[in-house]
Amino acid sequence: MEERKTLMRVALGKERADLVIKNGNLVNVYSGEVLPGYSIAIKGDRIAFVGKEIEHTIGSDTEVIDASGKIVAPGFIDGHFHLYMTVDQFLRHAIPRGTTTIFMELDSLALGYESVIALLENMKEQPIKLFGLAPADIASSAPFLKPVAPPLSNDDIDKLLARDDVVGLGESVWTDVIREDRWTLGNIALALTRKKVVDGHASGARGNKLIAYVASGVSSCHESITANEALERLRLGLCVMIREGSIRRDLEAVSQIRQEKVDFRHLCLSTDGLWAEDLLSLGHMDYVVQKAIDLGFEPVTAIQMATLNIAEHFGMAHSLGGIAPGKYADIIILPSLSKIKCEFVISNGKIVSKNGNLLVEPRKDIYPESMLKSIPLSPFQPKQFAVAADGEKVTVRVMKLITELITQEYQASLPIINGSVEPDLSQDILKVSVIDRKKGKLVTGFIQGIGLKSGAIACSYSWDVGSPMVVVGTSDQDMAKAINRVIELQGGLVIVDKEILVEAPSPIDGVLPSASAEEVAERSEKVKQAAKELGSLLSDPCLTLQTIPGTFLPFFRITFQGFADLRNQKLVDLIVK
Amino acid sequence: MEERKTLMRVALGKERADLVIKNGNLVNVYSGEVLPGYSIAIKGDRIAFVGKEIEHTIGSDTEVIDASGKIVAPGFIDGHFHLYMTVDQFLRHAIPRGTTTIFMELDSLALGYESVIALLENMKEQPIKLFGLAPADIASSAPFLKPVAPPLSNDDIDKLLARDDVVGLGESVWTDVIREDRWTLGNIALALTRKKVVDGHASGARGNKLIAYVASGVSSCHESITANEALERLRLGLCVMIREGSIRRDLEAVSQIRQEKVDFRHLCLSTDGLWAEDLLSLGHMDYVVQKAIDLGFEPVTAIQMATLNIAEHFGMAHSLGGIAPGKYADIIILPSLSKIKCEFVISNGKIVSKNGNLLVEPRKDIYPESMLKSIPLSPFQPKQFAVAADGEKVTVRVMKLITELITQEYQASLPIINGSVEPDLSQDILKVSVIDRKKGKLVTGFIQGIGLKSGAIACSYSWDVGSPMVVVGTSDQDMAKAINRVIELQGGLVIVDKEILVEAPSPIDGVLPSASAEEVAERSEKVKQAAKELGSLLSDPCLTLQTIPGTFLPFFRITFQGFADLRNQKLVDLIVK
Repeated sequence: MEERKTLMRVALGKERADLVIKNGNLVNVYSGEVLPGYSIAIKGDRIAFVGKEIEHTIGSDTEVIDASGKIVAPGFIDGHFHLYMTVDQFLRHAIPRGTTTIFMELDSLALGYESVIALLENMKEQPIKLFGLAPADIASSAPFLKPVAPPLSNDDIDKLLARDDVVGLGESVWTDVIREDRWTLGNIALALTRKKVVDGHASGARGNKLIAYVASGVSSCHESITANEALERLRLGLCVMIREGSIRRDLEAVSQIRQEKVDFRHLCLSTDGLWAEDLLSLGHMDYVVQKAIDLGFEPVTAIQMATLNIAEHFGMAHSLGGIAPGKYADIIILPSLSKIKCEFVISNGKIVSKNGNLLVEPRKDIYPESMLKSIPLSPFQPKQFAVAADGEKVTVRVMKLITELITQEYQASLPIINGSVEPDLSQDILKVSVIDRKKGKLVTGFIQGIGLKSGAIACSYSWDVGSPMVVVGTSDQDMAKAINRVIELQGGLVIVDKEILVEAPSPIDGVLPSASAEEVAERSEKVKQAAKELGSLLSDPCLTLQTIPGTFLPFFRITFQGFADLRNQKLVDLIVK
Repeated sequence: MEERKTLMRVALGKERADLVIKNGNLVNVYSGEVLPGYSIAIKGDRIAFVGKEIEHTIGSDTEVIDASGKIVAPGFIDGHFHLYMTVDQFLRHAIPRGTTTIFMELDSLALGYESVIALLENMKEQPIKLFGLAPADIASSAPFLKPVAPPLSNDDIDKLLARDDVVGLGESVWTDVIREDRWTLGNIALALTRKKVVDGHASGARGNKLIAYVASGVSSCHESITANEALERLRLGLCVMIREGSIRRDLEAVSQIRQEKVDFRHLCLSTDGLWAEDLLSLGHMDYVVQKAIDLGFEPVTAIQMATLNIAEHFGMAHSLGGIAPGKYADIIILPSLSKIKCEFVISNGKIVSKNGNLLVEPRKDIYPESMLKSIPLSPFQPKQFAVAADGEKVTVRVMKLITELITQEYQASLPIINGSVEPDLSQDILKVSVIDRKKGKLVTGFIQGIGLKSGAIACSYSWDVGSPMVVVGTSDQDMAKAINRVIELQGGLVIVDKEILVEAPSPIDGVLPSASAEEVAERSEKVKQAAKELGSLLSDPCLTLQTIPGTFLPFFRITFQGFADLRNQKLVDLIVK
């Protein structure tokens, strides 16, 4: 309580502030107003005073920022976020953009409980606030498949939910919920019992299925891609996180909702995570808020959507999300309401960035050695990628990309050479393999729509239980070479054409890069370029590879149990009899 | 989780609802709209489905309410409430008015920890939801007085805060907070540590003092009496509970805030408690919401102020405050948006009232025997009320009522008869005594402005630490007779004029009446009438008596330590030297 006493004393003029922001135009997210001529006194990590008369809080040791003519607003919050680099690398670039709080899904390293704990440790004691959400997003896979144990048990999830730095349960996918998946419902029950937030993921759900999903206890969705979807979700009491990030950019379409006369208190902004190249070139929440304003949202509404509304969703508005006495001093100073470019970023009472320059160093990530040597596999031989068959030709089922993320079943006749079914580049049919990162189990099939004319691409991570490794290629030799280099690197994406062309290592749990954001972005560019030169038709080969085993995406997928026909909810044979 | 599964199954048409409300005009407090043609399916105590197509949820055992042409809204919540009768008696009359949740200060019986626990037990398993707030409102009295141990220790408060049915800390008075009262700040620290709501009470505070108070961590105030005060509090991030109840009626004045273009999400309605006569004649939150609408608030805004906004303040919007899948089925049906008169009240999925008729019986209050025999005092002798002095006349300090609640010091010359200072009815100066309910300590002084021409009024409860008993009267004989009857009754208010004229017993802890609301209201009327007939000028003699020892009210008060001059913050003698 001593800290609170000190705040009161500063407000009453009995003690002096550490930092004062003087005479700004205050964005008051509580009242929804911009109030001219307001000043803020900060003591320690919190706000002691907000008002017009500030002199009584200023002493000889008080640092004063003149905010005359400027906009003073709460620091930005990202309400739904996945990490694609180390914590410190993300913060180096997010902090100068005005981000002061991130609610982070802890699935980035969700290969086991220890990995999640390591990530949480790296999120601690950073210049800005990072809160975790227990990773609940990938259930035990499609219902017609044999259940696969999720990387975290319900008990693990409960241990995470018990922590103060884990504020809720991360996104539980709606299809798993309404099919009553035991693990998924178990997680939700645990979170509700602990009175923690239950985040949702209702991509494409509507009508009765969406309603059933909401009845389960989830309270948010970041998957609205139209204003209608957003409105349907708001009306059901959900917090709608509009996503504008690397995976998808939904803000423009969803922004049409501003023409509805509805209450926006449950409308929020989020990125759902950013690739390094987007973080560096566009920014973080500053870019999203700017875009919301440019699309026609009232600036104060846009700022509420990136501050108070999110804090309220997570039940943390008592301490963050707005500028008021007693709250954490998380504040940005902007040139104007139409120009969301931070001149100052203050987090926990400290000036952490000025005119885009970082003034603090985020604490460097540390991971245990076991996480840096996480792929215990021996090299593969090219022949392990062979698909055996008799005769000269055979009809096989092929994953056909109809978009870069959506597939359907296609049947093609392929040649058999030396007892082995071969890819057919004239039909753009390549081989595709999924490989268990721990036990080396390998399943090979065929894929159409990648476009490679030679070589192979291997990637050590993907969106499915246990994050299988994935290889696509034009020859068994190149596929083996690519995945073997990935294993040597203990994670990453490698492109091979006889020789190794590009490698983008991800040595942390085989999933996260340890390099700087700049290097990661540069490698990502090189990956795209090299794939293109080999004939790839994909705008982001890494993203497409990651989704290949994901049975939560339509309609035809390769899994360790075989080929999943998701439209008919059954396993099918590779070779059509 | 079985309950959630059942909800999902009803939404999906795999199971049937228990109760359906069909085709109403839904007040959607989330989106802030009225949506025509909406139906609601209820299973158990929760909402399973909200939408336009309802038939798939209806089975042969489903009860269906036709809401065509009606308004369907969430049940009302009282956000700040004190109890002045038994729980069951209040509920008997509040439920038909549409109240489905009450956030209750637990000070009504705050004479000790056991009393609070007994009250909490009586709040359990009622037809509507009752949540408690740990009683923090009366600190150890004015700073210049010797500290008096509050009825509950910080440890007691913490034990209460640990309970699920205690959702926060009750109102901490702002003057105690900013003077850094140890007990008060201790309570706030405990509540903040437990991440529970800290309610406030900032009557008359403004500017730096209000700001300092907010910095302490309080998050609400129900004491705004003007629109300006409400706006100042909203801008500081406080939840503003507009009070419209028996103690004060602030809604009309504060309603001017609707002309400000501000966000109303943190504006709420509350009663702060109701006397029985107001409950019976006006109603509960239905009356307040009706008045808000009549004063010009948008009906949906008024309903949000009595539902969702309150649920969000207490961090309970995940389960109550609106009509959405998964929330508790707390629903009212109204004839129109301009007529807030409940045709149906549904609480926890059960129809609890229909057209004003209660269909359930609240669970009867039970109190331990010790709480029914709580005033262990022997009868007083008239001479114990004597004020000794020498000579024929003396100048004494008098509590002068300048309103029925506000006093100031007045000096009067009074006659001395047989060594005892006498009241002087010609100046309307009566005797006033405060009496410790446990130890019998008695202090007598003088009061002006009551108006009694003969007789005495005694009351066993008042608003100060330990709830002292209070007597005012024209003679020592009548004062003794009145308080002795109060002691026989073990609590209550008694009016005497030689004989006992009226008695309104309050046998529960000497504070709460055990009689029906109707009897309590009738007795209250008789008390007012009898006092008037004896010459009383007070509109509510009981209320004025209760405030007599309250050093939190200006400016001159009688206490066990002597006479408190609150303007100069010191004790003064009764007799002016």
